[in-house]
Amino acid sequence: MGWVQRRRDHGGLIFIDLRDREGIVQLALDPDRDPDAHAKADRIRNEFVLAVRGIVSPRPAGTVNAKMRTGEVEVEIRELRILNTSKTPPFMVDDTTEVAENIRLKHRYLDLRRPGIQNNLMLRHRVARTVRTYLDARNFLEIETPILTKSTPEGARDYLVPSRVNPGTFYALPQSPQLFKQLLMISGFDRYCQITRCFRDEDLRADRQPEFTQIDCEMSFVNRDDVIEVMEGMIATVFKEAIGVDVSLPMPRMTYAEALARYGVDNPDLRFDLELVEISNQVKESGFKVFAEVVKGGGIVKALNAKGCGTFSRKEIDDLTDFVKIYGAKGLAYVKVTEEGWQSPIAKFFTAEELSALDRALGSEVGDLLLFVADSYKIANEALGRLRGHLGHKLGLTSKTNFKFVWVTDFPLLEWDGESRRHVAVHHPFTAPMDEDVSLLDGDPGKARAKAYDLVLNGSEIGGGSIRIHDQSVQSKMFDLMGIAQDEAREKFGFLLDALEYGAPPHGGIAFGLDRLVMILTGSDSIRDVIAFPKTQKATCLLSEAPGTVDEKQLRELSIRLATRPK
Amino acid sequence: MGWVQRRRDHGGLIFIDLRDREGIVQLALDPDRDPDAHAKADRIRNEFVLAVRGIVSPRPAGTVNAKMRTGEVEVEIRELRILNTSKTPPFMVDDTTEVAENIRLKHRYLDLRRPGIQNNLMLRHRVARTVRTYLDARNFLEIETPILTKSTPEGARDYLVPSRVNPGTFYALPQSPQLFKQLLMISGFDRYCQITRCFRDEDLRADRQPEFTQIDCEMSFVNRDDVIEVMEGMIATVFKEAIGVDVSLPMPRMTYAEALARYGVDNPDLRFDLELVEISNQVKESGFKVFAEVVKGGGIVKALNAKGCGTFSRKEIDDLTDFVKIYGAKGLAYVKVTEEGWQSPIAKFFTAEELSALDRALGSEVGDLLLFVADSYKIANEALGRLRGHLGHKLGLTSKTNFKFVWVTDFPLLEWDGESRRHVAVHHPFTAPMDEDVSLLDGDPGKARAKAYDLVLNGSEIGGGSIRIHDQSVQSKMFDLMGIAQDEAREKFGFLLDALEYGAPPHGGIAFGLDRLVMILTGSDSIRDVIAFPKTQKATCLLSEAPGTVDEKQLRELSIRLATRPK
Repeated sequence: MGWVQRRRDHGGLIFIDLRDREGIVQLALDPDRDPDAHAKADRIRNEFVLAVRGIVSPRPAGTVNAKMRTGEVEVEIRELRILNTSKTPPFMVDDTTEVAENIRLKHRYLDLRRPGIQNNLMLRHRVARTVRTYLDARNFLEIETPILTKSTPEGARDYLVPSRVNPGTFYALPQSPQLFKQLLMISGFDRYCQITRCFRDEDLRADRQPEFTQIDCEMSFVNRDDVIEVMEGMIATVFKEAIGVDVSLPMPRMTYAEALARYGVDNPDLRFDLELVEISNQVKESGFKVFAEVVKGGGIVKALNAKGCGTFSRKEIDDLTDFVKIYGAKGLAYVKVTEEGWQSPIAKFFTAEELSALDRALGSEVGDLLLFVADSYKIANEALGRLRGHLGHKLGLTSKTNFKFVWVTDFPLLEWDGESRRHVAVHHPFTAPMDEDVSLLDGDPGKARAKAYDLVLNGSEIGGGSIRIHDQSVQSKMFDLMGIAQDEAREKFGFLLDALEYGAPPHGGIAFGLDRLVMILTGSDSIRDVIAFPKTQKATCLLSEAPGTVDEKQLRELSIRLATRPK
Repeated sequence: MGWVQRRRDHGGLIFIDLRDREGIVQLALDPDRDPDAHAKADRIRNEFVLAVRGIVSPRPAGTVNAKMRTGEVEVEIRELRILNTSKTPPFMVDDTTEVAENIRLKHRYLDLRRPGIQNNLMLRHRVARTVRTYLDARNFLEIETPILTKSTPEGARDYLVPSRVNPGTFYALPQSPQLFKQLLMISGFDRYCQITRCFRDEDLRADRQPEFTQIDCEMSFVNRDDVIEVMEGMIATVFKEAIGVDVSLPMPRMTYAEALARYGVDNPDLRFDLELVEISNQVKESGFKVFAEVVKGGGIVKALNAKGCGTFSRKEIDDLTDFVKIYGAKGLAYVKVTEEGWQSPIAKFFTAEELSALDRALGSEVGDLLLFVADSYKIANEALGRLRGHLGHKLGLTSKTNFKFVWVTDFPLLEWDGESRRHVAVHHPFTAPMDEDVSLLDGDPGKARAKAYDLVLNGSEIGGGSIRIHDQSVQSKMFDLMGIAQDEAREKFGFLLDALEYGAPPHGGIAFGLDRLVMILTGSDSIRDVIAFPKTQKATCLLSEAPGTVDEKQLRELSIRLATRPK
């Protein structure tokens, strides 16, 4: 049984390609063999639903289709039933026809018949199965946490649900089950996991959805290495079982400080080199005032040797300059390394010794393009780090079938938010400081590092977690440092603070974004290709037309009114 | 590592019962062997978190505790670390101490440490694992459907989520993924499953929660027997793997008409007999006007022989009468069968032949109690059917370890709603009529039966489903019959109607309530004993205090206002 992919008449014979989720097979209808089936086949159109019986036979010589998995056989039909008809679909159900995405999403039930997206969702199923089997074998319990809950402190905007029974109050949909999984550890469940939906009411970027799925884990009586070991084993198992790729373990690790120094970002793409080099020391006494003054003013100068890019055109270099400006850099200095030495507007500001020191630092060779950003630590790193990623793509160094993992560790615990004039948690307020940095909390909290870790794959953070605070006094101190008043902390997280006083075990965990993981595994360009019923960037479902208007009666029951008429 | 269940001093020796999710083990601390550990143990209180090392040793003669799984051993402690302390908990963490439920729910992180509830959640994990493994082996794909979606037509009240991006509009949380799973079949996924959260904003009864979990399945190219066969195999596997109970297959089946005739209800408890017998024919010409007139007026008289209950007191029989009145019955006639014949206020109205015909029909014997309800078909069946269930409990016939399954089939498709003066779907509007009853849709739709089926276990419906309509014209006719106007149907389900026109395969499915299934498997009395973080009957979470108030700014962003101040 299946769907008609296409029908062809060949001198009286009718051939039908019949499709189901496993693939396509050719049906052959011969008017001499079964006139009844042949007559029915005459009215068959694309996407009709058929039930057939017949004999699987080798195709006649010369008609074998080597490109098709079933190209050596066909089914000689003995019986055919039309189970349902179909109007002419608005687009051809295949992976090659170009169709505007809004048309595809509106007719998602047809779009989902494409082999490409069916394979994505079948692979997603296998990933979830592999994750659950792996974790179950390691004594993780899958425990469901509430969807109708209270605002969680993840920093993003909550989706709210008005309560009818308790007028004027609201549930929030969880941004993550963070507090609940910690409570489960405090409850003695030892190891928890859940593949669960999370919600953030944020303006959507290309790879975000209002609801997304998280592989959520938490473990008691563990340190960072325990969590990393179990989780990298899980990821390696997923890669092996889902796409047959061997991931070598242990995965490499890198501190946050090293990631920023070498790659400018905390999610480095290790599929290629193009490392960043800080040259502040080499230029701070130089005659090139632009560099020297930035360093003297507390900034840094970083450089990237784009190996072999000395042939870039003026236009290409201008594009790179525009690119770094997106990240706040005021400009991009560049040098082409030629047989005659530096070819660059800035070459003249440096002495021969300085030039040769820079060449040594950057390993420059004839044909290279050297790129420089002089700015604050933050901007120089981000701009040049992003430029590095951009160049990796441009130079074709980012094969989708090359998988490079790295654990980034030792993140800062807090960062200073100039706007609100207080510290904010880099991960979240429940992340434990590193043991050797606890004493910094009283004197220099901005220097304290966290027991946090991210798993980065090909430049994407696919998971992140931390060892949590299990000591109520440390948790209170964190809230203090973040300028969260006692009563606010009590109101928001009182139950966690209470729970920490009744025998909380040391614990930690992690969460992986399932959608993004499946995107990478399937090599998809859009998160919408790995979700059955995704939403648009305006957070609407073009199929069901959600969100929609509701009755006055419904609003009255919920004790709310509209402040704006719907458009 | 684990939690201190209790600590005892015995002439200088300290004994600690250490608890984790697997159970309890006794630690023995001898001041001579390890003075350091012994000294620390002195300050240990209940619910402290400990890490210990020691030698597992047989307990000294005379101190073996046969009631404990680890009662033959103890751990001679060599090293002890206090990982965390605990305040004195508000209640003892065990399954025997009586604690008010609101206290337990407020301190759920302590309540969840109880072995009873930990075992429930561990069993729940195993049930979900078994279901997924079983369905995966049968080529079901777990596919996630949206939580932020459009109002689903299940009849109950939706939870709504205001949209910020599209002011004045709302998402609805799904009452079930009904439409999405049908769309997945139309998309050619062939077999779908999902263990998923569903939401109903209804006033809560004891065994309901605002959010609940469903094992949701759908299959293409199947008939009723296909669905039943796969699903009863799944349930049998769950019973075997979760609690070691063998369920014999195939499970018995019964039509809706038979269930009502014999048990008065469509969810009969087959753990005991006490069947209902209709005696309308035997009494319609009798001298007992109350019965005869009900029958002549179109009602029925049904009876139940409560075997051996002839000893019930007047008070007990009055209680039974009060019970049937809950279900609208005007009264309950009764007869005690004695050596001297019928002892009853109504005996005198019947002739000897009538009495003997009734005795034959009811199989009455000395010592029996015969109970009669004369009323409309609906009320007589429901009142006496519920009374049957009540008697089953009262007579101790409802052992929690006796599992009696029955599939109830051939439900009516539609029922007449006197209030709205239209037909409403008994299951839901997408349920297919039985093939032989399709012609009734035009003439006598109330008589048409549906391809619907419920799985009933010990008097509880644990699952229900149907073969769906895959023909757009039949679907439109259903909406017509239900008085749903074309434009209303289009607005609400237009995407389903569209999808049905593009090659929908025959399909059907089922959904099981996971919470209730786990309740039955664990013998729990409350649904809150099988959910980690349940809500109260006022739909609040006493732990997190959800739902809560929100900022004006949040409401402004969502373009809504409160019509009522929160209390």
